[in-house]
Amino acid sequence: MAIDLRSDTVTRPSTAMREAAADADVGDDVYGEDPAVNDLEAAAAAAVGFEDALYVPTGTMGNQIAAHVHGERGEEVVLDRESHIYRWELGGLAQLSGLQPRTVDADNAVPTPAQFESTYVDESLHRPGTGLLTLENTHNARGGVATPPEALSAVADAAHDRHVPVHLDGARLFNACVALDVDPERMTSEVDSVLFCLSKGLGAPVGSILAGDADFIDAARRDRKLFGGGMRQAGLIAAPGLLALENVERLGVDHANAARLAAGLREIDGLRVPEPDTNIVQVDTADLGIDAETFVAECEDAGVRGGAHGDYVTRFCTHLDVDSEDIDDAIDRIDAVVESG
Amino acid sequence: MAIDLRSDTVTRPSTAMREAAADADVGDDVYGEDPAVNDLEAAAAAAVGFEDALYVPTGTMGNQIAAHVHGERGEEVVLDRESHIYRWELGGLAQLSGLQPRTVDADNAVPTPAQFESTYVDESLHRPGTGLLTLENTHNARGGVATPPEALSAVADAAHDRHVPVHLDGARLFNACVALDVDPERMTSEVDSVLFCLSKGLGAPVGSILAGDADFIDAARRDRKLFGGGMRQAGLIAAPGLLALENVERLGVDHANAARLAAGLREIDGLRVPEPDTNIVQVDTADLGIDAETFVAECEDAGVRGGAHGDYVTRFCTHLDVDSEDIDDAIDRIDAVVESG
Amino acid sequence: MAIDLRSDTVTRPSTAMREAAADADVGDDVYGEDPAVNDLEAAAAAAVGFEDALYVPTGTMGNQIAAHVHGERGEEVVLDRESHIYRWELGGLAQLSGLQPRTVDADNAVPTPAQFESTYVDESLHRPGTGLLTLENTHNARGGVATPPEALSAVADAAHDRHVPVHLDGARLFNACVALDVDPERMTSEVDSVLFCLSKGLGAPVGSILAGDADFIDAARRDRKLFGGGMRQAGLIAAPGLLALENVERLGVDHANAARLAAGLREIDGLRVPEPDTNIVQVDTADLGIDAETFVAECEDAGVRGGAHGDYVTRFCTHLDVDSEDIDDAIDRIDAVVESG
Amino acid sequence: MAIDLRSDTVTRPSTAMREAAADADVGDDVYGEDPAVNDLEAAAAAAVGFEDALYVPTGTMGNQIAAHVHGERGEEVVLDRESHIYRWELGGLAQLSGLQPRTVDADNAVPTPAQFESTYVDESLHRPGTGLLTLENTHNARGGVATPPEALSAVADAAHDRHVPVHLDGARLFNACVALDVDPERMTSEVDSVLFCLSKGLGAPVGSILAGDADFIDAARRDRKLFGGGMRQAGLIAAPGLLALENVERLGVDHANAARLAAGLREIDGLRVPEPDTNIVQVDTADLGIDAETFVAECEDAGVRGGAHGDYVTRFCTHLDVDSEDIDDAIDRIDAVVESG
Repeated sequence: MAIDLRSDTVTRPSTAMREAAADADVGDDVYGEDPAVNDLEAAAAAAVGFEDALYVPTGTMGNQIAAHVHGERGEEVVLDRESHIYRWELGGLAQLSGLQPRTVDADNAVPTPAQFESTYVDESLHRPGTGLLTLENTHNARGGVATPPEALSAVADAAHDRHVPVHLDGARLFNACVALDVDPERMTSEVDSVLFCLSKGLGAPVGSILAGDADFIDAARRDRKLFGGGMRQAGLIAAPGLLALENVERLGVDHANAARLAAGLREIDGLRVPEPDTNIVQVDTADLGIDAETFVAECEDAGVRGGAHGDYVTRFCTHLDVDSEDIDDAIDRIDAVVESG
Repeated sequence: MAIDLRSDTVTRPSTAMREAAADADVGDDVYGEDPAVNDLEAAAAAAVGFEDALYVPTGTMGNQIAAHVHGERGEEVVLDRESHIYRWELGGLAQLSGLQPRTVDADNAVPTPAQFESTYVDESLHRPGTGLLTLENTHNARGGVATPPEALSAVADAAHDRHVPVHLDGARLFNACVALDVDPERMTSEVDSVLFCLSKGLGAPVGSILAGDADFIDAARRDRKLFGGGMRQAGLIAAPGLLALENVERLGVDHANAARLAAGLREIDGLRVPEPDTNIVQVDTADLGIDAETFVAECEDAGVRGGAHGDYVTRFCTHLDVDSEDIDDAIDRIDAVVESG
Repeated sequence: MAIDLRSDTVTRPSTAMREAAADADVGDDVYGEDPAVNDLEAAAAAAVGFEDALYVPTGTMGNQIAAHVHGERGEEVVLDRESHIYRWELGGLAQLSGLQPRTVDADNAVPTPAQFESTYVDESLHRPGTGLLTLENTHNARGGVATPPEALSAVADAAHDRHVPVHLDGARLFNACVALDVDPERMTSEVDSVLFCLSKGLGAPVGSILAGDADFIDAARRDRKLFGGGMRQAGLIAAPGLLALENVERLGVDHANAARLAAGLREIDGLRVPEPDTNIVQVDTADLGIDAETFVAECEDAGVRGGAHGDYVTRFCTHLDVDSEDIDDAIDRIDAVVESG
Repeated sequence: MAIDLRSDTVTRPSTAMREAAADADVGDDVYGEDPAVNDLEAAAAAAVGFEDALYVPTGTMGNQIAAHVHGERGEEVVLDRESHIYRWELGGLAQLSGLQPRTVDADNAVPTPAQFESTYVDESLHRPGTGLLTLENTHNARGGVATPPEALSAVADAAHDRHVPVHLDGARLFNACVALDVDPERMTSEVDSVLFCLSKGLGAPVGSILAGDADFIDAARRDRKLFGGGMRQAGLIAAPGLLALENVERLGVDHANAARLAAGLREIDGLRVPEPDTNIVQVDTADLGIDAETFVAECEDAGVRGGAHGDYVTRFCTHLDVDSEDIDDAIDRIDAVVESG
């Protein structure tokens, strides 16, 4: 059977989560009457140290709502050019909110204060002005890089000095917290809003959390309705989401498995494999002269599923449905692929 | 305990639905790998006679996706001025798709061919041109009015004669089908896409279906991602949704209860209560000189929950969590409200 | 030679205007350094009693800028369903500003306070809220109807009671002022911004004025740049525009000619011709069984140019390039058309 | 008196242009009946080798119309990060058209084929796809750089290989043609549309030209109305614009003056002054430790006007209202500024 390392989004809910769904105390969440959703939002807000939180069906919706609330049409959004919100959300910044992205090359995953400063523009007759800074932690496309809170705060402070709000795309926020052994509240202490996913490594079947202060969440709730995310008896999926918050420490296992995978693959001639910070392993096959799409196809045939994330970069992602034995198997299978190549 | 007649969105999932959630065979639906979602989409498409279907978190998202796919920015959307898509979806037509609504007063809930003709405009140097016609059946704000397929087809044909696509907001489509004893396929035979809700009267906790031909659904799937509705192990809520499709015939009970409620309330001096077509009862308190907001508050105090839907119009909605005994209680309680008024 | 009554936009600039263009003291208006533009803006602001004014290339741009500045995306704009800003500006409200029009049937050309009240909606979780009221005076599509200031103020006051700003599309504002013998300042006393055209009856070759308070004009100047209306040595057309402001009283001649035309045409069997308020004459050919497009074509052949403005309504518009002799000729020619019909 | 080198937009129209305005044969251009506009559009289309052309009030409007016609909302626009269309047009790509800019660092002013290839993305479920490539020649913010047609064609071909249309922002196209001694038709041979300004170096008071094939211009004409650029007797400014087309060769004088200015300034200790390609001279004052805003202010006091175009970069622009004597004066005055610094 294939070992599925395409993404940590493929995890299936646990028995406990399924039971939580079956037993959820639900109501109409559009009226604010779903107890399971309310419990989840309260717990989630507390988990990241914000006043309030909103349950949304996807991380994309959470990020796009944040941009819609923080930014005014025409303004610029400063962000890393490899950001998920820029590359993988269908141009929503421009298309849904009329916001113009201004990208920097954030080699360390988040822009430096100097990078922010160099792109900041005042509003003028000719220029829209900078209206938002978004950060991503861990950073998906750059290999699951975990950025310490000091680096987040430094650039967030630079933005605040210019009265620019800061949103953190923390789809995998807790991976960063666990990897760096940092309290989530500290990670978000200087940003104005944060999105994190209950699906992905935390293992919930559906849903993400957008957190911020009460005014922000009031506005976000309205935009959630606009974008079509105002669900009814959402407690059925919020209840498993509440359990997902208990899975934070378990992410350390995924990280250990990723390190094990990277170490094993690095032994294979021709593969370049940087040390992973978290649960994402990037494998560069340029030295083999094999492009990522071919490599992914060959691994698939050999029973290991990954994804092409660049011309020569393949991504493998560990998660709660794979254990160390699977990892060892995966290494062997990939080794065979390279050998036979 | 209060009898909650605010909306059929307040229904709680059945035990069978909860078990279906717990037992659902799930996968990552963004990859198209969630068996429960795939089963639901296939069954739902078949139920309304379309080639393909898409599971969306809410009816609002389904309607707004349809408008985004069918219409081009700047074009006009012809629709009844009391349409849900126009009045209750936060201006999404304009805000998300740049479409300009052109309303008609559709006294019979759907515009007549003549009304469509009188508002149709060709594209010109000064005018955007008509790009979409949307219909609503049953029609919420006009009192759950069920429109027969002949009336839908007549105006849809008029639109097609002008090469204008037609979307049907069938949030409560099956209420219309049951009330008129019409096969759903016949109801949708002349429209290009249809949205219907699995929540509301059918009793699913979360979710709606957007159906159309394969090209339309391909484009809709992409817009679902844009709007943030591309969920992961959505089978957990799709599985109960599949059971909801079995609840169609049961809607007749809601209609009988609504008729029972209307008959009872009509006996009360001062209330004007039109005969309901389906599960929505509108009570006019103008003759009592009591506005709807006051009346709703007084009913709430007396243990019956409704909603103000106009200056003097209160809406009560029957659903699977109320039975004929509840209805009789509700009549008594409302009678007491009017008596004491 | 054809008598061109299609529109008062066809007027050609006078010799004085051409000389003013040739002699204009110009500079770069994007830097605010064009003396002719500055003179015009000051004079125009004074003419309508506002703090500041902005020269824009067209009335459409002025109206759309006003909507962009006053409204927030998603909000509703209350306006007459026959408004130019709604019918003839390519859906700009929705397309450029994400605003949702909410139309009323303003039989008297401007909505009544009661009509405004009945369409006003508060912002809520489901509804965008009313964000703007726009009026039109004189009202083009309703036959050049001139509305007295009391009616404008009444509905504007109703809007202000709800904190809704009011924009007046006064493309032909001075026609209303002259017809009703009302000072322009009084006509605009209760609105927050006004657009009026220097072209049309006032005879300038190009350009319109948007007036409001200083903050409004600051924001409008930025939006003018966004929409591409920030011209350079615009004094060349602003200087004739300044002369156009001297043509206000002359509009009385156009009105007299329109009255003369209406009186003459009313004598012709089969034509229904309401008494014009200003310079627009509407001729209804329904009794003749001739539709407007056919009638326009036949008049064109006979040497009189008009425009179809409805299925059976043809519009003729008087202006400074036609005199009473032309009018008498036009009547004779149209008479011949009907006779030979 | 100050020598104004802020921009070539400050030029005042010649006597011949003023006379052309006064004598223009005009009509209502919205009806397509302005002979002077029609003459200009025909001549302009011929000048750049396109089938058709459209007169627009500003270069910004022309660029934004091109993006609106070529691109579909959500798509990506590949362009240099210093492009005018990206930096100085108020976020219009995102705000007016929902397009997402994807920037490259085009050191040579236009992206290379490899840069285009590396940013190109196919449409997918997650990504909008690349919808447009825009080029700029000469390139303003990079110092008036003139790019030869081979480089434009190379990247345009790369785009066309991917079915991506190409728009050329040629606000100063003829400066590039004169500097490189290249026929305009050759410069535009591989692009799908071009914008060039009649104001700026060519000396017209107002207006720009957007050229393309007939279908493109038909769509552009409609968008011009949408954006508010459909003027009436525009011949008054189009007639001087026609004369501006005769000023192409004269741009060589501006280039010689710019070279003279650069040579003179390079002699001054502490100033770094690259050799200008055309009429734009960039002066770097970093070695003096004087930032651009301060330097501009001091030059202004000394009677030379320029503009800050970067932290330490000041731009001076030559044009038809300055001659070689003015240039020598300017050098002396700036020398005095640096001496006294």
